[in-house]
Amino acid sequence: QVHLVVAVPQELPFDRLGRFACNISTMKRYHIAKVYRRDSPATSRGRYREFYQCDFDIAGHFDPMIPDAECLKIVHEILSELKLGDFLIKVNDRRILHAVFASCGVPESKFLSTCSSVDKLDKMPWEDVRSEMVGEKGLSPEAADRIGEYVRLHGGLDLIEQLLQDPTLSQNKLAKEGLGDMKLLFEYLTLFGITRQICFDLSLARGLDYYTGVIFEAVLVQQENEHVEEPVSVGSVAGGGRYDGLVGMFDPKGRKVPCVGVSIGIERIFSIMEQRVKASGEKVRTTETQVLVATPHKHLLGARLKLISELWDAGIKAEMLYKKDPKLLKQLQYCEDTGIPLVAIIGEQELTDGVVKLRVVTTREEVRITFYTRIQKSRLSHSCRSCVCLALEQGD
Amino acid sequence: QVHLVVAVPQELPFDRLGRFACNISTMKRYHIAKVYRRDSPATSRGRYREFYQCDFDIAGHFDPMIPDAECLKIVHEILSELKLGDFLIKVNDRRILHAVFASCGVPESKFLSTCSSVDKLDKMPWEDVRSEMVGEKGLSPEAADRIGEYVRLHGGLDLIEQLLQDPTLSQNKLAKEGLGDMKLLFEYLTLFGITRQICFDLSLARGLDYYTGVIFEAVLVQQENEHVEEPVSVGSVAGGGRYDGLVGMFDPKGRKVPCVGVSIGIERIFSIMEQRVKASGEKVRTTETQVLVATPHKHLLGARLKLISELWDAGIKAEMLYKKDPKLLKQLQYCEDTGIPLVAIIGEQELTDGVVKLRVVTTREEVRITFYTRIQKSRLSHSCRSCVCLALEQGD
Repeated sequence: QVHLVVAVPQELPFDRLGRFACNISTMKRYHIAKVYRRDSPATSRGRYREFYQCDFDIAGHFDPMIPDAECLKIVHEILSELKLGDFLIKVNDRRILHAVFASCGVPESKFLSTCSSVDKLDKMPWEDVRSEMVGEKGLSPEAADRIGEYVRLHGGLDLIEQLLQDPTLSQNKLAKEGLGDMKLLFEYLTLFGITRQICFDLSLARGLDYYTGVIFEAVLVQQENEHVEEPVSVGSVAGGGRYDGLVGMFDPKGRKVPCVGVSIGIERIFSIMEQRVKASGEKVRTTETQVLVATPHKHLLGARLKLISELWDAGIKAEMLYKKDPKLLKQLQYCEDTGIPLVAIIGEQELTDGVVKLRVVTTREEVRITFYTRIQKSRLSHSCRSCVCLALEQGD
Repeated sequence: QVHLVVAVPQELPFDRLGRFACNISTMKRYHIAKVYRRDSPATSRGRYREFYQCDFDIAGHFDPMIPDAECLKIVHEILSELKLGDFLIKVNDRRILHAVFASCGVPESKFLSTCSSVDKLDKMPWEDVRSEMVGEKGLSPEAADRIGEYVRLHGGLDLIEQLLQDPTLSQNKLAKEGLGDMKLLFEYLTLFGITRQICFDLSLARGLDYYTGVIFEAVLVQQENEHVEEPVSVGSVAGGGRYDGLVGMFDPKGRKVPCVGVSIGIERIFSIMEQRVKASGEKVRTTETQVLVATPHKHLLGARLKLISELWDAGIKAEMLYKKDPKLLKQLQYCEDTGIPLVAIIGEQELTDGVVKLRVVTTREEVRITFYTRIQKSRLSHSCRSCVCLALEQGD
């Protein structure tokens, strides 16, 4: 389960001897593009090896947790803006997890496999995870029980303070570093005003072994109802963390470039949004076309071309059928099929009167607007109703 | 020199026997993405096998020349909006070219190789092209001379009318079809109001052998000066045409899907734009950041985080250095290096007074604006000067 995207500048910085001579050591970038995952495809669940992802990363030597906080702010902003419903961003730190494992008596060689067991806590009850740790991973039952005490903790700044006082963890250098950074992170997130949706969760482990510090994962949570007490996760939609060692592995001189980044699962988000639109009975639209330019009878292709050209020039998203003499019914049907909200109809009568008939597809409301005043951007606002109103106010 | 992009829907429409069962027969799409060209790379001229291209295509059975005209309208719009200077879109039709070749006595087996000679007329004088035709391609000198009479013609509707009366071409079925469509195209382009930059040019051939009808190519032309009489082409920036046979080649049942499309050479366009910006002495910017949030002394990271968060929430593109206590000079230097036009400075005094100091980087003009009225989107317009004025008017 490796989904790595290495962003390389367009002109590869090889020197004259063909050595990779990249001196870029700081970078902030995003991209929305295809990524690849070495994984068994699960076609029925829409899980492919090739898929679209949206990544945001900050690379470079900076003061602790400032870029990390920005990543979380961006995830928070994206999920809020998209109005996907309630969400929760779980945060943890690999160093804290490792310190917990060490203090519970897990040998270092079993850290990564223990991580992958802990990572299943969001899908399996603790008892099953414990069985896996003891049965498959070879941990002692005592070690597993002690891990269980920690990984079921979650909270905010209060939990961080509590763990900083923990008799075992407070003796551990890695734990102190991790908890210190976590405290700093929560201070910054408080200034960003986003802590309500962020939870320090010791069960978050994330499978990828290149993470070195803070890790995070955003999940959508079901709206509470009478049957459910705690919010239920309905799936991860973003995840990421700090990976300070990865870039150095590819540098011949081993120079370290610390990085923190996040991946937004846009395919999953799109499919959720699509389901919501469908459930609400609305049409899932694949274009943003605002208006179809239509004619009610023959020999009016010229009038359509002239009008659509004016609309395009005014920045309005307009379409017309690529037919010389389409039937009006076909044109209206096309709007219904594709969800285009408005039709601008121009016939002989309209040409003579110098007007355009603007029709709202759903309500069949119609209004005649003067052709010569030219349709302006502001006339076609998002809401059809207000557009017709505006046209009514300003029209002839 | 093949640069093909085949757009495939995300979920591949294979049927249960694994047969490609795509029933999509109409499509209008664009994309900006990497494409690949089997060609000898010319690294020094920035010509690689892998490069970015912007494509727009319309597929489907439609009435003649309506989608073709839309492609040209889009090229015209893109080149006008980007303000790249004067440009010319050359248009021709493969059927007209073939009819010309046939009527000049070129055997059909030599049509494609003759095309590729004619295609060089924008880079070589007619004499050299003629030598190539006779010497390398094996045409008779008479055939070459007769071709020369045609391929040096260019004009508009008048030339189309003239060729429709041409004693040889008017006898040729292909020529009549091509010229008929060309006339229709120019009528539509007249309605779109873009014929001033469009030229019917019989020397345009385009190398790719999949074109079946109209072909076009946009070139930037040098501003006229006293030494140059005719506008000089400084390079092709877009090209395309109709390819009605290509999709059918990949369909097991051989169903035809007529297509017309255009490729915009965005890498070339970007490099031209970059050169222009550099020549004007301005900074080439790689981000659109409007304002840097800065502090003049230590212990103010919290104030910066709070302010930048408010700016982000208001939709303003803001950055800050990822340092706890950066020097003011470093922060101002960063703006100069990256071309960020504004700095929002917040120090102890500003915190006490509840204001932010907004500074224009180039002029060092400064204005204090009340923190509590919150900075609104409209305050940071494109022009720094007007933004400071706005802030002055509305500030404390």
